[in-house]
Amino acid sequence: MPTIAIDAMGGDFAPETIVRGVAQASVETEIQCVLVGDEAAIQSVLERVPYNPEHISIAHCRDAIGMEEDPREAIRTKRDASILVGARLVTEGRADALVSAGNTGACVLACSKSFRIIKGIRRTAIASVYPRQVGHPGQDPLALILDVGATVRCEATELVQFALMGNAYARRISKLEAPRIGLLNMGREGTKGGDVLAETHRRLQNHSQLNFVGNIEGNHVATGEADVIVCEGLIGNMVLKLVEGVAEVFANATSQAARHRLRWRVGLMLLGKALRQIRELTDYTRYGGAPILGFENMIIKCHGRSNADAIRNAVKVAAKAVRDDVPREIAEAVVGMR
Amino acid sequence: MPTIAIDAMGGDFAPETIVRGVAQASVETEIQCVLVGDEAAIQSVLERVPYNPEHISIAHCRDAIGMEEDPREAIRTKRDASILVGARLVTEGRADALVSAGNTGACVLACSKSFRIIKGIRRTAIASVYPRQVGHPGQDPLALILDVGATVRCEATELVQFALMGNAYARRISKLEAPRIGLLNMGREGTKGGDVLAETHRRLQNHSQLNFVGNIEGNHVATGEADVIVCEGLIGNMVLKLVEGVAEVFANATSQAARHRLRWRVGLMLLGKALRQIRELTDYTRYGGAPILGFENMIIKCHGRSNADAIRNAVKVAAKAVRDDVPREIAEAVVGMR
Repeated sequence: MPTIAIDAMGGDFAPETIVRGVAQASVETEIQCVLVGDEAAIQSVLERVPYNPEHISIAHCRDAIGMEEDPREAIRTKRDASILVGARLVTEGRADALVSAGNTGACVLACSKSFRIIKGIRRTAIASVYPRQVGHPGQDPLALILDVGATVRCEATELVQFALMGNAYARRISKLEAPRIGLLNMGREGTKGGDVLAETHRRLQNHSQLNFVGNIEGNHVATGEADVIVCEGLIGNMVLKLVEGVAEVFANATSQAARHRLRWRVGLMLLGKALRQIRELTDYTRYGGAPILGFENMIIKCHGRSNADAIRNAVKVAAKAVRDDVPREIAEAVVGMR
Repeated sequence: MPTIAIDAMGGDFAPETIVRGVAQASVETEIQCVLVGDEAAIQSVLERVPYNPEHISIAHCRDAIGMEEDPREAIRTKRDASILVGARLVTEGRADALVSAGNTGACVLACSKSFRIIKGIRRTAIASVYPRQVGHPGQDPLALILDVGATVRCEATELVQFALMGNAYARRISKLEAPRIGLLNMGREGTKGGDVLAETHRRLQNHSQLNFVGNIEGNHVATGEADVIVCEGLIGNMVLKLVEGVAEVFANATSQAARHRLRWRVGLMLLGKALRQIRELTDYTRYGGAPILGFENMIIKCHGRSNADAIRNAVKVAAKAVRDDVPREIAEAVVGMR
């Protein structure tokens, strides 16, 4: 069973929800968890919840990096921050993978500092899991979009590597034989989107290892035409946050409707499950988190607002990625590329 | 009263909905409309609807450019296409502005061929109107995002010019004294998003003519923090289509709910107006269309799926833009920039 280091101090509701999520995992699985952070704070949460002490240990450290801190400055000055200590646990072999819901920039920098980049990979990518409309029974309701913020602007080579990394992850984690790979672009035609995207399209189309389904436009991100969507970090980040924003507007509108009129309130009650399905589709806290791909070690980055369920899921996903050896699959794909 | 040339042959439902929309405008307003396209086809629609013949004339031409045609090739070979004839009517002084729901690329190319670019403007931008959540009573529920597809990739100078153009349009059309200008980016901090966006942020912040409110993240596009959002065409196009896609998924989910269970159907009926409000927020066919800014003449580009109401609104918006002399406001802003 793999050992997972969890940054207990990162996230909007840390350490409370982080420790609760890990406590759940300790009861439900055989995964070994190392909670990294302030021991007293961690203990005070553990005292209030059921957990399996055989599956949990604590690696104490004093510092933590806040969600709003400048990542570069914080990583430089807080040498004993939980995210840095967690990353070191992995490179020292005391843990097999890392989970954090903390400051995204700090996670990327901490890993860059401690982990090695897979040979041949130029830049890392955050691969976010997102919900999509399912087209046929049995289809995975979750798809992958990368990068969503690690590499702001990209050349064609980096985007092709993101496709290979996403492909490897989807093959191992979602058990898809040949994941459908799409390139996020402003039109279906291969020549669209400027030189970099046109060149990327050409190279993906000619790539023997990839099941490339062509360009995906914004309106088809949610309709499930691709299992893995590739784009530069700037665009992926906006796409992800936009979907969050629309979901928020929807939630506000329905709750306002409920407040304003009895018949609307009754209508919402009757809709019950149908509305819940829509809400669940856009509830990011339910998904396990996003792997940062390209390092020799696995890190799962959770949403800052993650609840305990999300943390528990992330711990499970991290253990699965270790068992399935995702970094090796990526390394082999990149060797094939050269 | 201004004279507006309307491309009768452009759009998914042309000439039917285009002619119907213009017929509506001819009854409701004093605007002079010139329908450009196949005379027999236009007449056959006019025979079936009420219209004011004093406000409508027809400029016959044989060719039309299809929605799926390659714009560059079509503009080169179809010299008598309705969009080209319409643009020439404007430069010859026989019309004051142009409206089309046709092939976007062909619209941009036809205008580039006939219209002059405002002195000092480097690239044109399509400024799409989009619906947002209203924060306070009286706030305009429509905001502007530009560019959404004319200029794929941008330098800082072009983005600053887009801000000036959007500012001018919002001042004249929405009657806002000092429209709030936002830069679409992946974080609030001015240094985010790579060199071009960091430089753009710096220049917008120091710009005396603009009420710059800073970076806008994807999740705040829909929540009304800015009246004008600036971004490169590749990103704007994806944002727009993504919102359309999410709306489509929402519509599918509710109609499936209605089919599957009686209690859901009753729930939807009771919600009636509340759901309609959400649908209207994302119904692009209801809005008048998007001006392509940067030319000395006005063109309003409508969504390909526009219905007659959308066309009627676009004709009104075009007439308003002519009366308010939006191109002059832009020209003056750019002079101030140098």
